Amino acid sequence: MHDLHEMAAAARAAYLTLASADASARNRALLAMADALLSEKDMIFAENAVDVRLAQEGRLAAPLLKRLAFGEEKLNSVVQGLRDLAALPDPLGHTTLARELTEGLNLYRVTCPIGVIGVIFESRPDALVQIASLALKSGNAVLLKGGSEAARTNLALCNVLRAAAEASGLPADFAQLLTSREEVSEMLREDDLIDLIIPRGSKAFVRYIMDNSRIPVLGHADGICHVYIDASADPEMALRVAVDSKVQNVSVCNAMETLLIHRAIAPTVLPALNEAFAAAHVSLVGDSETVRIIHCAPASEEDWRTEYLDYRLSIRIVDSLDAAIDHINTYGSHHTDCIVTRDDAAASEFLRRVDSAGVYRNVSTRFADGFVYGFGAEVGIATGKIHARGPMGVEGLTTYKYKLLGSGQTMGDVKAGRISYTHRDLEGTCPI
Amino acid sequence: MHDLHEMAAAARAAYLTLASADASARNRALLAMADALLSEKDMIFAENAVDVRLAQEGRLAAPLLKRLAFGEEKLNSVVQGLRDLAALPDPLGHTTLARELTEGLNLYRVTCPIGVIGVIFESRPDALVQIASLALKSGNAVLLKGGSEAARTNLALCNVLRAAAEASGLPADFAQLLTSREEVSEMLREDDLIDLIIPRGSKAFVRYIMDNSRIPVLGHADGICHVYIDASADPEMALRVAVDSKVQNVSVCNAMETLLIHRAIAPTVLPALNEAFAAAHVSLVGDSETVRIIHCAPASEEDWRTEYLDYRLSIRIVDSLDAAIDHINTYGSHHTDCIVTRDDAAASEFLRRVDSAGVYRNVSTRFADGFVYGFGAEVGIATGKIHARGPMGVEGLTTYKYKLLGSGQTMGDVKAGRISYTHRDLEGTCPI
Repeated sequence: MHDLHEMAAAARAAYLTLASADASARNRALLAMADALLSEKDMIFAENAVDVRLAQEGRLAAPLLKRLAFGEEKLNSVVQGLRDLAALPDPLGHTTLARELTEGLNLYRVTCPIGVIGVIFESRPDALVQIASLALKSGNAVLLKGGSEAARTNLALCNVLRAAAEASGLPADFAQLLTSREEVSEMLREDDLIDLIIPRGSKAFVRYIMDNSRIPVLGHADGICHVYIDASADPEMALRVAVDSKVQNVSVCNAMETLLIHRAIAPTVLPALNEAFAAAHVSLVGDSETVRIIHCAPASEEDWRTEYLDYRLSIRIVDSLDAAIDHINTYGSHHTDCIVTRDDAAASEFLRRVDSAGVYRNVSTRFADGFVYGFGAEVGIATGKIHARGPMGVEGLTTYKYKLLGSGQTMGDVKAGRISYTHRDLEGTCPI
Repeated sequence: MHDLHEMAAAARAAYLTLASADASARNRALLAMADALLSEKDMIFAENAVDVRLAQEGRLAAPLLKRLAFGEEKLNSVVQGLRDLAALPDPLGHTTLARELTEGLNLYRVTCPIGVIGVIFESRPDALVQIASLALKSGNAVLLKGGSEAARTNLALCNVLRAAAEASGLPADFAQLLTSREEVSEMLREDDLIDLIIPRGSKAFVRYIMDNSRIPVLGHADGICHVYIDASADPEMALRVAVDSKVQNVSVCNAMETLLIHRAIAPTVLPALNEAFAAAHVSLVGDSETVRIIHCAPASEEDWRTEYLDYRLSIRIVDSLDAAIDHINTYGSHHTDCIVTRDDAAASEFLRRVDSAGVYRNVSTRFADGFVYGFGAEVGIATGKIHARGPMGVEGLTTYKYKLLGSGQTMGDVKAGRISYTHRDLEGTCPI
């Protein structure tokens, strides 16, 4: 029924309109979306009930069913999210560089939307509202592909958001829903119309997308997060941070998967950790040193590379801060890694040399999140290094353009020495 | 002789060392490179003479021979470039966000290098010095593949730079030279070790790289640049800007390829333009309206999509500012496009809605250049929208990490309501 190429072209047209809409129009649309979700909630809940019933019949696992369910609590949460987002500063039109190149020739670098973004996300329908609203706030159009279990809920939510945008004078096609895998494959080929793909999923899934598209990809892939307990850690704090990083929610990308412990402190902290993890039903695997101190199964090389997302943890004892940093840079996924230490020099070294989006001192890895960072929500957590890193809010959905305002200058004048560069930084913002 | 995987691993180790080196060490190395190039110039010129002789025997075209030649003038230019670069501010360690998340838990976003970057560039050996020095300034390691015609010159230059870095206490392996196409193919597969590929070349070449690697690509591809002469343009300025944009250097990516003219002003400006382009030996093709006003061949649909890089120009008459913007967004390459106008509203509309890295008013497109913008030099001109756009200097070679400094906070405390978010912006920079 839909033609993906036409959808992408419509998204491009919507983006070009949105890019010229001022902040108040975009914020009004976000508030209208919040109101519309509330007034259409019975319809949305009814559609979700069908999705949930079909999923139960298909014997979807309990944690996935919980993610799929969309009730009052999740509705209120996304409505509040929309209102918070409307209140955040406009990410567009900021002058981030202002420089006189020569007399009467001024260069401005100004933030602007990226364009058309394809986002592939999991079964959680609240993600659709978060992604679409972050896109609208930042002037982008999105093509959305959610989990097929949530098809009815996603369609209901997307239609409500589209109608609210249109009623606010903005193009409905800023958000369009893909409904099949074939459309995803077609989307990956539309590199002339689509500027960015954000796949949320496993490392294998993100790699599949990268291998099948020349559109830039900002991957939200594995989280193999580490906590390193330094020789000079406060043992009580180390226990608290390590346990929270693992057990507060085991199935999320910012949960700890490997615990590294300095040899000097291992005999002090390991028995208490062993007890705490046993109480939380976490099964442990350890390197040969760990196995000598506590009773647990031996870890294999593969364990260091595994994102368990489960009640399972690998433990390794290291000789030094250097060895901990090397382990993380070798086996980690560049997501979020923490050092527990009282030593400022060790903390500084760790934060500088660990090659990850989030480098933490004395705090649970579970804080790696766009809402926690104050970004309103997140489109994903980028584990690559290009464009955006870590939790991506609206800033990650913007780029910039260079505006150069002249009065007839030519390169011929420069080469002939009639004008020369001043490269003087200017105060103020781009006047047009 | 080289194993590409080992080279990439050595580059990664060099990057991790460089990322911890302070700015003064990196700047000292840049100055040492400038001195070393001067003291080794006879050796470099001798190697270049061999490259040039072989290229002449192989009947390389004259413009390519000119690019290949590396004499006193180019040497002095790259030496000055190195000294200018050493004097530029450090792009690393800037705190770009500082926020208290909750009491005693502070988030800092701090700029840092990207890591290992592969750059594939053309026959100009001075590009090697520019790229390697921009990489070092920004704490990155580079794998370099230049044109095979310049093999001896590139090897000589690279060895001088490596030795100077090592003598300054930094790892020589921050810059390594690839010598074969097979090594390029192997490089494209090292996505665990290499963070970014920058291919400089045609659109087809950039697409080839994108199709054959899952490493992110910042393409320096076609420049199909436009000048649009608005109804309210100053005719004399329009002539000056249009002629300079085309003829000052026809073989560069920021030269104009298509001239758009508002119908109302076409009869006024076209005859003078025709005369000026004829005097500069530029052959013209035009749409049906243009052909009615001046004598020239008809343009085909293909002309609007072609980067001539030659003494050839396509001309189209448009009905409106909207039509000009649509033409550019449809056929352009998102590089650099200019409006000549006295009308502020038209200029504002054009700069906002044209979807290009550079949007200019009343100035030649030839100004799109990293040196001109005051960036010292450029690694390339990015025509995509992700990460960096337009001329890429050292800022384009940086990313950031989030440093989170806590005192034992857990997500459990948040969920239990024992701590709550303050999201208060902080003054100052990251303390460690």
